Amino acid sequence: MRIEGLASSAGVEIEWRPFLLGPIFKSHGWDTSPFNIYEAKGSYMWRDIERLSAKYGIPYRKPSVFPRNGVLASRVALASESCEWRSRFSKLVFTANFAEDRDISDEAVIVSILESLGEEPGSIIRSALSDENKGKLRLATEDAIGRGIFGAPSFVADGEIFWGNDRLEDALDWYGNRRERAG
Amino acid sequence: MRIEGLASSAGVEIEWRPFLLGPIFKSHGWDTSPFNIYEAKGSYMWRDIERLSAKYGIPYRKPSVFPRNGVLASRVALASESCEWRSRFSKLVFTANFAEDRDISDEAVIVSILESLGEEPGSIIRSALSDENKGKLRLATEDAIGRGIFGAPSFVADGEIFWGNDRLEDALDWYGNRRERAG
Repeated sequence: MRIEGLASSAGVEIEWRPFLLGPIFKSHGWDTSPFNIYEAKGSYMWRDIERLSAKYGIPYRKPSVFPRNGVLASRVALASESCEWRSRFSKLVFTANFAEDRDISDEAVIVSILESLGEEPGSIIRSALSDENKGKLRLATEDAIGRGIFGAPSFVADGEIFWGNDRLEDALDWYGNRRERAG
Repeated sequence: MRIEGLASSAGVEIEWRPFLLGPIFKSHGWDTSPFNIYEAKGSYMWRDIERLSAKYGIPYRKPSVFPRNGVLASRVALASESCEWRSRFSKLVFTANFAEDRDISDEAVIVSILESLGEEPGSIIRSALSDENKGKLRLATEDAIGRGIFGAPSFVADGEIFWGNDRLEDALDWYGNRRERAG
């Protein structure tokens, strides 16, 4: 929710790269979010999100179901790589889940988000559900794992991984410092 | 390493509360640090510490053994509750482990740190190793778990838990905002 304004101020261009957390968690031996498995850390995380949302002025309500299946949303995000509405779609999905407690695993919710963007959902969903796009999401997830990514959001800046909202400014600074080094 | 300067500027008093991570990790089913268990996250963590140490100008060298047993150091820190050198001792232990690659589980290393503070190690170590002090550290660890603490450093500000160096400023702000609310 914060990256576009900060990146724009820093003169950094963003390339969104959707991937799935589920396979990463499975490779750790987890069948759900670690926040569900490790109770104290999970409780802390929800409180942390609540405090940070208030700090940043971002609407937030704890989802009644967590985690929700984000595979369809990720497939749409991946299939819309060349579309100018891609980042707005992604943010609306996060808002639906984390502020409006809507079931983003439900195709009807994704359709309604696409409609709210003025897009025609039918062809987008068909393209998202094509075997080619499904395969691309699997490859994107393998690529993320290969880069050493283990959580989301992760920011890759000049090969350096920065994990989490609280490293966003550091990731953007990394680019600025690289430009300085390069003179 | 950063808390004293920032807390002083914010007019916040610090009470150091030593506790052990080992029993907390054990309760999660981990027999070592999660950074050893989850490889990608561990690799990231070391790089993150390296980058943050450079950012803050804090000396850092990756320990050749991790984690080292900090029970003796924690017992000394607990036993020195009323001593003005307590926070300096604690910081020197972290420096010994994370900048000088010294074995802080070795009593000789703890003794040399106490000597560098101009203290008489014999009676301090004896008091640290007393059954009473050992029991107090177990209770302090249970107290931490009871508060919902699952990692270190954790900052408890007015009942709110903030976890990690990257939440230190938020923890101090929490006090400032509370004072404002209280008028």
